[in-house]
Amino acid sequence: MAVGLRPPQDLLPVPGVTLAACSAGIYRKPRPDLCLMAFAPGSRAAAVFTRNAFCAAPVQVARSHIAGASPRYGLINAGNANAGTGQRGIDDAVAVCRAAASLGGCLETEVLPFSTGVIGEFLPVDSIRKALPALHGRLSASGWIECAQAIMTTDTIAKGVSRRVEIQGRPVTVTGIAKGAGMIHPRMATLLAFIATDATLDKAVLHELLGDAVRGSFNRISVDGDTSTNDAVLLVATGKSGVPAGAAGSTPDVQAVQAAVSAVCVELAQAVIRDAEGATKFISIRVEQGASEAECVRVAEAIAGSLLVKTAFYASDPNWGRILAAVGRAGVEGLDTSKVGIDLADVRIVEHGARAAAYTERAGKEIMSHAEIPLRIRLGRGSYAATIWTCDLSHDYVKINAEYRS
Amino acid sequence: MAVGLRPPQDLLPVPGVTLAACSAGIYRKPRPDLCLMAFAPGSRAAAVFTRNAFCAAPVQVARSHIAGASPRYGLINAGNANAGTGQRGIDDAVAVCRAAASLGGCLETEVLPFSTGVIGEFLPVDSIRKALPALHGRLSASGWIECAQAIMTTDTIAKGVSRRVEIQGRPVTVTGIAKGAGMIHPRMATLLAFIATDATLDKAVLHELLGDAVRGSFNRISVDGDTSTNDAVLLVATGKSGVPAGAAGSTPDVQAVQAAVSAVCVELAQAVIRDAEGATKFISIRVEQGASEAECVRVAEAIAGSLLVKTAFYASDPNWGRILAAVGRAGVEGLDTSKVGIDLADVRIVEHGARAAAYTERAGKEIMSHAEIPLRIRLGRGSYAATIWTCDLSHDYVKINAEYRS
Repeated sequence: MAVGLRPPQDLLPVPGVTLAACSAGIYRKPRPDLCLMAFAPGSRAAAVFTRNAFCAAPVQVARSHIAGASPRYGLINAGNANAGTGQRGIDDAVAVCRAAASLGGCLETEVLPFSTGVIGEFLPVDSIRKALPALHGRLSASGWIECAQAIMTTDTIAKGVSRRVEIQGRPVTVTGIAKGAGMIHPRMATLLAFIATDATLDKAVLHELLGDAVRGSFNRISVDGDTSTNDAVLLVATGKSGVPAGAAGSTPDVQAVQAAVSAVCVELAQAVIRDAEGATKFISIRVEQGASEAECVRVAEAIAGSLLVKTAFYASDPNWGRILAAVGRAGVEGLDTSKVGIDLADVRIVEHGARAAAYTERAGKEIMSHAEIPLRIRLGRGSYAATIWTCDLSHDYVKINAEYRS
Repeated sequence: MAVGLRPPQDLLPVPGVTLAACSAGIYRKPRPDLCLMAFAPGSRAAAVFTRNAFCAAPVQVARSHIAGASPRYGLINAGNANAGTGQRGIDDAVAVCRAAASLGGCLETEVLPFSTGVIGEFLPVDSIRKALPALHGRLSASGWIECAQAIMTTDTIAKGVSRRVEIQGRPVTVTGIAKGAGMIHPRMATLLAFIATDATLDKAVLHELLGDAVRGSFNRISVDGDTSTNDAVLLVATGKSGVPAGAAGSTPDVQAVQAAVSAVCVELAQAVIRDAEGATKFISIRVEQGASEAECVRVAEAIAGSLLVKTAFYASDPNWGRILAAVGRAGVEGLDTSKVGIDLADVRIVEHGARAAAYTERAGKEIMSHAEIPLRIRLGRGSYAATIWTCDLSHDYVKINAEYRS
């Protein structure tokens, strides 16, 4: 049911990165559910993690590991979130890092663990340990697609994106994979994303670059308003392109890498929405003429978070009153409702806070029948704008989430 | 499908209040959709309205009318919200007030208009005007139940509650009716409630009493996180009981009336949740041991607002990880997750922030299969508590809201 999304055809290898996936039996039915990524010595990394107070054991361990060392491995499992598992969860996350480290000949703090899946069950450490040697033996530069598949949970399509830019006459590659389909909301989601580049970037630049890219991508999507215990986005720069660019500062070279990383993150984030649980519509909500970017985001989030708006989109019903009501409850101080306008694609629905004179239900219905719908809100207060991507709320969302553990 | 809710059998008349309902043809199919309430001269009234910036025309008119005069009539229609209708909406709301006023021999500012239904369509003023004379002729002290039926929209069961208390040896009555099934969230909802008592209360006391009652009832329920353009709760005191009690101050007599009004509001608010769109479960979320009441409410709202929690309840799946994740994203500053506990009825699920040692999935499943489920969260931070009532999210919620206008 994914909206306008196809599986990645080929993902560009990133010099300095090898990876592989296998079935470790974490899911009851056999499917790839374990993934190992290896980064060449000298790689640098930055990561952002969920802000949920109940962050999962692997998040706590990965956060601590990355603070002290540059990672040599990422170890990712689907099917079990290792969250709500207390001290044993921490011990388990460290144990699987240790197993990977002993195979790779590095410190356990040079391995970053990531988990996604059901909350509250203990990690099957033995199964993971048993699967690791063969997995380590299969590490390959071309393993991106199998890893994109192995990290899926309720995703129906694997998500991967590559970009190549030329810097100082040489190619620099950015490739990323992501998973996530529910529990998705700005400020991170049940979402994991792993992005690598062979650019040379120092750690401070890498952090800034990731922060910027995430702000305009993974933090601008909403499926259901929930945020998860396990979200993480990892960006690794191996430096293997041989281009010495971008050690620090905002040079044109760094900007070129920045643009490529941002483009990869936006496309992955949109892919998450296109493949969101039960989604039949891909909706971009652009709020314009705000007095600040923050209030534009707030209005966009109120609309994206409205079940009534989302069910109306599902039904292809141009019930714009629900959009108006969502704008009205977004808490914009001193909003002059008589200045608010709403367009669905090129159809003006609301102007001066009420139904536009020329609007016809027929025109609204026509637009609502499309699979991809751009919604624009004008607040009439200033010159700021923000965009959030979201989806509709369908029968299948309820079905998928009611039956998740059965 | 309403959970543990029956239609009101008999509602006690309130001396000084007469009312009646009829079909004015606002809905396409014939059904009662217009309701007139008359209040004896000398009645006093207080009201609370939606905080949505896009408040409907009748809300704007009613707010202005009640500020300047004591109401003699309330005129309520279902089937059309008269919201998002600009200046014409205001004119229309005033026009129907004027029509009622000319029948009743009062000022148009002594009539309060209320509307509920589809947003963005103009009020059928002529149909309402045409229906009013006969409706006015049928005003009766026993019209409560027919009015409870006439104000319903997606409600499946009419909602009405009466309480009688004795003050100074004489009976004092409180009767209220309400409608609302979706677009329900704290800070008011697509909810209308009309409560009357024959107690004698001055306007300041009445305001305070209504504020208190609403805080613990209509502002403690959530169906879907949306708030509407039309919400209003009206409390009228006719003074016809002959008990001179409670002119001002917190006397025992006023407290007795307060308790009765609060009880009526709580029962009506719970009825809204029991009959919420698609609801199959009635869930009370009590958050205890908070450092403030506000943070308890915030945590309860985060849980009540989680689609994942709500679909798990629908599926009778004790997926407590989702509850934990909702607690974690509620934004409680400095939450020590190792102190958090969760009980479902008398089953301890989480203690010290992780699965309770004695918990079994079977015990959780058994509790989840009930239609009424008390959920308790302990934050381990203080002595404050708050309760919110909510429902599950079912296939029918999506169905009802996808097909609302078709």
